[in-house]
Amino acid sequence: MRIPYQQLRAEFKRVLTALNINDEVAEACAATFADNSRDGVYSHGLNRFPTFVEYIKEGLVIPHATPTQVKIMGAIEQWDGNLAPGMLNAKFCMNRAIDLANDNGIGCVAIKNTNHWMRGGSYGLQAAEAGYIGLCFTNTIANLPPWGGTEPRLGNNPLVIAIPRKGGHVVLDMAISQYAFGKLWQYEAQGKPLPVPGGYDKQGNLTTDAAAIVESKRALPIGFWKGSGLSLVLDLLATLLSGGDSTAAITQAGRKESGVSQVFIAIKTDNDKNAAMIDEIIAYTKSSEADEEILFPGENMLRTREQSLKQGVWVDEEMWGKVKGL
Amino acid sequence: MRIPYQQLRAEFKRVLTALNINDEVAEACAATFADNSRDGVYSHGLNRFPTFVEYIKEGLVIPHATPTQVKIMGAIEQWDGNLAPGMLNAKFCMNRAIDLANDNGIGCVAIKNTNHWMRGGSYGLQAAEAGYIGLCFTNTIANLPPWGGTEPRLGNNPLVIAIPRKGGHVVLDMAISQYAFGKLWQYEAQGKPLPVPGGYDKQGNLTTDAAAIVESKRALPIGFWKGSGLSLVLDLLATLLSGGDSTAAITQAGRKESGVSQVFIAIKTDNDKNAAMIDEIIAYTKSSEADEEILFPGENMLRTREQSLKQGVWVDEEMWGKVKGL
Repeated sequence: MRIPYQQLRAEFKRVLTALNINDEVAEACAATFADNSRDGVYSHGLNRFPTFVEYIKEGLVIPHATPTQVKIMGAIEQWDGNLAPGMLNAKFCMNRAIDLANDNGIGCVAIKNTNHWMRGGSYGLQAAEAGYIGLCFTNTIANLPPWGGTEPRLGNNPLVIAIPRKGGHVVLDMAISQYAFGKLWQYEAQGKPLPVPGGYDKQGNLTTDAAAIVESKRALPIGFWKGSGLSLVLDLLATLLSGGDSTAAITQAGRKESGVSQVFIAIKTDNDKNAAMIDEIIAYTKSSEADEEILFPGENMLRTREQSLKQGVWVDEEMWGKVKGL
Repeated sequence: MRIPYQQLRAEFKRVLTALNINDEVAEACAATFADNSRDGVYSHGLNRFPTFVEYIKEGLVIPHATPTQVKIMGAIEQWDGNLAPGMLNAKFCMNRAIDLANDNGIGCVAIKNTNHWMRGGSYGLQAAEAGYIGLCFTNTIANLPPWGGTEPRLGNNPLVIAIPRKGGHVVLDMAISQYAFGKLWQYEAQGKPLPVPGGYDKQGNLTTDAAAIVESKRALPIGFWKGSGLSLVLDLLATLLSGGDSTAAITQAGRKESGVSQVFIAIKTDNDKNAAMIDEIIAYTKSSEADEEILFPGENMLRTREQSLKQGVWVDEEMWGKVKGL
């Protein structure tokens, strides 16, 4: 079913306010979840909201905490997230990175002790809206086996790269696993094969059987050994630059996914000068003979947003009922 | 067969000197090719050397050119590579990025009109040797279809991320294609199936048949749609930051792969403080139950280097004969 955007947002705010969260924080968090569902990222919109509420109740997310500065090194800064809501910390950090980029051409902010940022693409979009190139990445709890291994030791550590563009920003928002576990569960429930291989079964065979992958816990990193290496270096960068917890430390502590490390980079760019160049690159990419429509990263999101604003935001009825009952 | 490292390097220098290239440039270029073969990157060591010589003869690589500064914007600089040898331009740029990082915490150098850097990992290693985190990427000629498409419109745009580490730097050197074409040709020649699917055949079926992929020109980006998006954004970044040619422009000009755009980023880091954290992350990654040995990116390269220095550098006999005849 579809729900008007404002209704969805108001419902999230109602639940948060009932937890004695102040108006400003409740409004900002509610907006993030509503925006994510509006843009088609349901897994980190409505569907994630009950978990966020649970984390607040468990003290893993501290709603009124704010980040504090740890260290300044020129165009790089380190911050402590103090376990505040990950979305608010992330937004704050990208804003700081933009300020640093405004002064230095490039700015980098690393944050430790933060929480799940929900949808990484939001902060790429934030940079692009401000006219800056945005890059960011986060570590996570271990949920992917390293190449050669059979047990989860790496995170699916999303990487976001956004480029401002008139008529629709280019926003790559890419986890290192071929499929999110949410997607695997969805295919499992529907009993449908994955479109491309998404992991290994217990016998070590590459498979499109989502249920077998969920059972083995052997989800596939993109590009096999390549994604495995990329996940490791993103975790190293996030950990070293922030001085925070690594995927290893988060996982070994035995806690839920909280207290993660993230990096935000903004780069100044000449948008007027770039406009034609970007459109030329996209046009060339789309000029290939195609079996399916060729889209740039972020293009489909814009269509979903438009549809959501016109027709209402799609919600899973069961989940919507659950949130209304919170 | 195996050849002593110094002999290989001297042979490259002999060929370059015979082209009236001055001693300093000949020595630096020869060292790059010898180092690449020494470290096991044969495709961009000995095996690529004849093509490099050909590019010099065709005027695509201008041996005595040097980069010139175009623009300074704080911790970001733009340079023009003036079609100098790509390896020398790349080394120069990473050095500049390190200088900028030394002053600003982070430094970014973008270069246009440069040439193939051969092995991207070299410049990651260069940063790591200097004690800095190094990131770099390049665009290339179109050699990968975008997701949904069947004709090459994207480059395999390598991405390099290196982290300094005592006892062996972590160096991810990753092209966006699952397999380099050199690797596909090798499997085709041997008639062996690829270890994992590497592209599509002419009928659009995902395949491990290297010959079928070479025929269809439909090599696979890592992670299917994800690598396709990553390749596009890396090209956008390289093009916009350098003001140089995109994969589209390089390919549409109908020229060989010359005049590419590249980006080099260096980040200051506290190596003494990091040492234990890096080793903890690597140890945790390796602690998984495993079917094969779990290696960090760059680990195997160090073993190959050690073996090459002890037993001589492996060379393809036919290629070695070809270079001796140049």
